[in-house]
Amino acid sequence: MVEMKTYDLVIIGAGPAGLTAAIYAQRLGLDGLVLEKLAPGGQILLTERIENYPGFPEGVSGPQLISLMQKQAENLGMKHEQEEVKRIRLSQHKKIITAESGKEYKSHTVIMASGAKPKRLGVEGERELTGRGVSYCATCDAPFFKDEEILVIGGGSTAAEETLYLTKFARKIYLVHRRGMLRAQKILQERLFNNAKVEIIWKSKVEKIYGEGKVEGVLLKELEKGKLRNLSCSGVFIFIGLKPNTNFVENLVELDKNGFVKTNRDMETSIEGIFACGDVRENSLKQAIVACGEGALAAHMVGEYLSKVKGIEYK
Amino acid sequence: MVEMKTYDLVIIGAGPAGLTAAIYAQRLGLDGLVLEKLAPGGQILLTERIENYPGFPEGVSGPQLISLMQKQAENLGMKHEQEEVKRIRLSQHKKIITAESGKEYKSHTVIMASGAKPKRLGVEGERELTGRGVSYCATCDAPFFKDEEILVIGGGSTAAEETLYLTKFARKIYLVHRRGMLRAQKILQERLFNNAKVEIIWKSKVEKIYGEGKVEGVLLKELEKGKLRNLSCSGVFIFIGLKPNTNFVENLVELDKNGFVKTNRDMETSIEGIFACGDVRENSLKQAIVACGEGALAAHMVGEYLSKVKGIEYK
Repeated sequence: MVEMKTYDLVIIGAGPAGLTAAIYAQRLGLDGLVLEKLAPGGQILLTERIENYPGFPEGVSGPQLISLMQKQAENLGMKHEQEEVKRIRLSQHKKIITAESGKEYKSHTVIMASGAKPKRLGVEGERELTGRGVSYCATCDAPFFKDEEILVIGGGSTAAEETLYLTKFARKIYLVHRRGMLRAQKILQERLFNNAKVEIIWKSKVEKIYGEGKVEGVLLKELEKGKLRNLSCSGVFIFIGLKPNTNFVENLVELDKNGFVKTNRDMETSIEGIFACGDVRENSLKQAIVACGEGALAAHMVGEYLSKVKGIEYK
Repeated sequence: MVEMKTYDLVIIGAGPAGLTAAIYAQRLGLDGLVLEKLAPGGQILLTERIENYPGFPEGVSGPQLISLMQKQAENLGMKHEQEEVKRIRLSQHKKIITAESGKEYKSHTVIMASGAKPKRLGVEGERELTGRGVSYCATCDAPFFKDEEILVIGGGSTAAEETLYLTKFARKIYLVHRRGMLRAQKILQERLFNNAKVEIIWKSKVEKIYGEGKVEGVLLKELEKGKLRNLSCSGVFIFIGLKPNTNFVENLVELDKNGFVKTNRDMETSIEGIFACGDVRENSLKQAIVACGEGALAAHMVGEYLSKVKGIEYK
C-alpha cells in the first residue's frame, strides 16, 4: 500500500476567499492544493457588476474578477483539482479529506472557503418550477424574460442589485418584501425607487408559485391584514439569503444555528489546523473584498500553525 | 456664530483602508469626509510592485493601485480635504477633529485609517545623514545608488522586497540582520538567496552610520562575539518595522504598548463611534488586501452605529 502524501494545506473552494488564500499560501512556499467542485468562482460568478471591489473604478464583472484571481494564483504555482468534498475526518493531527469521487487527500491544515448558496423559499411549486421560471440567479436567467412581467422576492442588497439588473430585460418587476423597508444599501434603494419598471409590494409574502410546466403566477399574502391575491408573472427570482456549504464538516467543527462556521478573529475554527474564511463564516459581510482579506489572514495563520507543528518557518 | 456642520463620518487617512472605507461609506449614502495629510496613498506608495493584491495577476505598483482606488471613491462622490489631524476630542456623543491648520470638523463617527510610518534605528549619524544616503524608501531613492555598494537593515518581508528592488540599481548589497534567520516570506527569501548581488550579514547590527556630508560607511557589531568592524557603503536603507500614526488620539482611545490602536473584531476602538482599520491597528497583517477588507467592515459598522444613533437605516 502506498502511503498517502501529506499536503501542507488543502483549500476547499475557489471563490475570492479561497483564491486569495491560495495566492498567499503560494507566496509562503506551502505545498497546497485547492479543491473546487465546479469551476473557480462561487457565488460571485452570479454577479454581473461589482462596483465596490477596490482597484476597479469602472466596476468589474464577477467572472472577470475571478478569472484574474485564478490567473494570479496559477502564476504563483497553485495546484487545483475538480472535486466535491464529502467529508473531513481527523487522523491524529492530520486531516483526511474525502471527495465525492472517493479519492482521499491528507493534509496538515484545511482552509474552508466553501462559501454559501442561495436559500430556498420553501413554498409549493418552487422546486417543481425551478428552471421553468423559478430562478436564483439573474445573471444566468435574465435574458429569458425579455419584455415579460416578473417577480423578485427579497429586500437585501443582493435582491436590489439583481432587480436592477433584471430591469434591463423585463418590462415590469414586482419586488415583494416582508417588511415596510428594504435592507439594501442606500445607493441601491435610490436606484430602485427611481426606476419606473420596478413596483415594490411591501409587507407581503409569496405563499405559492403556480403554473402548468412553467411559472404563470404566484399567490401573494399581505401580511398585516392577511389578505390573499393572485398575481400573474412568468418569472420568480428568489434572493432571500444564503445557506453555507458546511455539510462536510457537520459533527466536526462548531457551526452556528444556521450552519455557518464559528471562528475567532484569526479565522481559527474549533478544530486546530482547520480555518475558515469568506461567506462560509458566521457573521461574514458577504463582500468579495472582505472575503479576500480573510483569505489572506487565514493563509498567514496556516503558516504560523505549520511553523509550530513542523518546526519550519513559513512567513 | 455659525454652528459647525456635523458629518456622518470622518475618515482619517487615504491609504487602502481609508479609501475602501470611503467607497463603502459612499455606497451607504453617508455624508462623509476623508482627511489626508499628504496625497492619498500612505505606505503603499513606497511599494514598487504588489504581487499579492488579488485581481492583478501581473502585479501592480503601489501608486497605480492607490490611484485606481481613489478614482473609484471619487466616482462615488467621495469628499476629501488635505489636512493633518492634530487631535480628536469628544463633545457629548460627537467627535471634534482639530487639524494642524486650526480648522475643526465635527462628526458622529471617525474611522482611523491613519496607517504607520517607518521606524528609525536610533543610532548615531542616522538623523544627520537622512536624505544624504540614509533612506527608508527604496522606490524613492534607489536610482541614486546605481552601481554603488549599499547596506540594508532588516529581516522581514519589506526588507527583502526592498533589497530585491535595490538589486536593479546597486552593484552590491549587504543585508544586515540581527538574527540567524529571516522573517521574510519564503518566496522572497529564495529570491534573495539566489541573487548574486546580495550578501547577508547574519547576527549583526549597525552601531553607527558615518560620513562627511554623506554616508561613507557603518560601524557593524557581530552580536555573538561582540566584534566590531567598519564597512564602507554609500547608502543605508532601514526597514525595521512601522510606528503607528496615533499621536492625535493619545489619552483618548486605548493603544497597545507600541502605540497601535486596540480594536475588537468589528474594528471598534475603546471609544463608541471611533473605529480603526489597516496598519494602524494592533496586530494588523500590514497587507493591502487585509487593510481593504477591514476598511469595508469598518464602514459597515459605522452604518450600523449611525442607524442606532440617528434612527435612520444605513445599509
